[in-house]
Amino acid sequence: MSVKPLGERVVIKMVEAEEKTKSGIVLPGTAKEKPQVAEVIAVGSGITSDEKKKDEIKVGDKVIFSKFAGTEVKVDGEELIIIKLADVLAVIE
Amino acid sequence: MSVKPLGERVVIKMVEAEEKTKSGIVLPGTAKEKPQVAEVIAVGSGITSDEKKKDEIKVGDKVIFSKFAGTEVKVDGEELIIIKLADVLAVIE
Amino acid sequence: MSVKPLGERVVIKMVEAEEKTKSGIVLPGTAKEKPQVAEVIAVGSGITSDEKKKDEIKVGDKVIFSKFAGTEVKVDGEELIIIKLADVLAVIE
Amino acid sequence: MSVKPLGERVVIKMVEAEEKTKSGIVLPGTAKEKPQVAEVIAVGSGITSDEKKKDEIKVGDKVIFSKFAGTEVKVDGEELIIIKLADVLAVIE
Amino acid sequence: MSVKPLGERVVIKMVEAEEKTKSGIVLPGTAKEKPQVAEVIAVGSGITSDEKKKDEIKVGDKVIFSKFAGTEVKVDGEELIIIKLADVLAVIE
Amino acid sequence: MSVKPLGERVVIKMVEAEEKTKSGIVLPGTAKEKPQVAEVIAVGSGITSDEKKKDEIKVGDKVIFSKFAGTEVKVDGEELIIIKLADVLAVIE
Amino acid sequence: MSVKPLGERVVIKMVEAEEKTKSGIVLPGTAKEKPQVAEVIAVGSGITSDEKKKDEIKVGDKVIFSKFAGTEVKVDGEELIIIKLADVLAVIE
Repeated sequence: MSVKPLGERVVIKMVEAEEKTKSGIVLPGTAKEKPQVAEVIAVGSGITSDEKKKDEIKVGDKVIFSKFAGTEVKVDGEELIIIKLADVLAVIE
Repeated sequence: MSVKPLGERVVIKMVEAEEKTKSGIVLPGTAKEKPQVAEVIAVGSGITSDEKKKDEIKVGDKVIFSKFAGTEVKVDGEELIIIKLADVLAVIE
Repeated sequence: MSVKPLGERVVIKMVEAEEKTKSGIVLPGTAKEKPQVAEVIAVGSGITSDEKKKDEIKVGDKVIFSKFAGTEVKVDGEELIIIKLADVLAVIE
Repeated sequence: MSVKPLGERVVIKMVEAEEKTKSGIVLPGTAKEKPQVAEVIAVGSGITSDEKKKDEIKVGDKVIFSKFAGTEVKVDGEELIIIKLADVLAVIE
Repeated sequence: MSVKPLGERVVIKMVEAEEKTKSGIVLPGTAKEKPQVAEVIAVGSGITSDEKKKDEIKVGDKVIFSKFAGTEVKVDGEELIIIKLADVLAVIE
Repeated sequence: MSVKPLGERVVIKMVEAEEKTKSGIVLPGTAKEKPQVAEVIAVGSGITSDEKKKDEIKVGDKVIFSKFAGTEVKVDGEELIIIKLADVLAVIE
Repeated sequence: MSVKPLGERVVIKMVEAEEKTKSGIVLPGTAKEKPQVAEVIAVGSGITSDEKKKDEIKVGDKVIFSKFAGTEVKVDGEELIIIKLADVLAVIE
């Protein structure tokens, strides 16, 4: 079972705290409240069908996102976040 | 008797809690207040007449929607929700 | 004497409670406060002159509308509501 | 001396209460506070120069308007209201 | 020294109370607080360069304007108001 | 060292109070709080590259601006304000 | 590891207080709270792919930005800010 985001949305999954420490990403100040780093699980067709937007983000990308954005859902035991592309701030390479 | 949504709206019907448990979909945190998974009952002509949007959603799809969106109505004993496509977050496949 | 709505507005008239019960339409929860089912009495030229919108709604249609929308007026003893098409949620067929 | 409304505005003049009673127009509920029926005195060039809008309203039309809209002025002893076409809800025919 | 308004703005100067009484213009209710009739002193190039807007207003016109709009300045002892064309309601002819 | 404003912004510098008195410009009422007359120091490329906007404002112009707009910075001891062209009300000639 | 901003965003890094004093940039009033001068570390493809915007800002530029804008993140020990181009006020040359 998978979650296909509609329009210009992506589905992301929080990266484990351990992994984040290893990769060196930490959020200062509010870091203890809610981390903002996640991995892209699915990309909406409003993005993949757009010549410019489809190059900006793809499944597997690690992204930094706005912590007040997105809707949390739990599918097959996995906690996911459905978020608009406009609320994804950057990709970590 | 049926409900034909106007513009870019869809009519959805909440999926029973039992079915949701079987399919593995659960909403964390606020799950006890108001589930957000529903089945599409009807799709407005503003969507079916749009080359891009008509491929995103169709009758029978299971969808996750924003819980603060939509208007509830009861037609022939069935509780339905009329909601804009923009407030439907994802389709579960 | 008739009321001709301007722009993309329609004039609607509340359907009697008895009729609604017969047709099976009931609004849960807030049903006792303000029913939301009405019949279309007149359609503005901003709708009838639009190739797409004119097929969505016509005089005689039973519609569900947003209860916080519209302006109430009384013409020749009849209570009417002037409302924008965008606030009409669905047509009941 | 006359008042020429700018842009997509019209100048309207409240219809006397007596006339309204004769024509059968009454506003329920808030009728005692502020009637909403008026006659069009002048139409702005933003309307008369627009192919579609110029057919919607003309001098002499009786109109229903949103009671929270418009600016009241007194010219040569006559109380007038300058209002945007978008705030005129309907024409009474 | 003159004030050249930028974009779609005009510079206006309040008409003396005496002149207003003679011309028959009085503002009811709030008239004692802040009169709304003024004379156009200068018109911005965003208006004079627009085929439609340049015919709506010109230097010397008496105008009625929204009393909550505009910025007051004093130049060479004269009190002026810089206001957007959109906040000028009508021209008195 | 210079400050190059981005987009449709200009950099302005407050005109000395003495100079303002000489040139006859005084702001009534709130004049004691915050003067609104300044000289243009730099113009952004979003303005200089626009056929219409580049003629409206240039370096050296004395301008009247909205006192609630702009961001103050100090560069090489000089206090400057970075402001959008839309918040510049008029040029004094 | 690098941070690639999405859309019309840039990644910036605060300039050290010492460096700012040397370069003569100081922010009056609120300077003690939060400096607003930073260096551009990365530019989003929404800017580099835009014929006009790509000339306005580039990696290495010193910029003044709106202090209420941007999201702070810490990557590999470095504190960065991801901000929209529209919130970058000026480049210091």
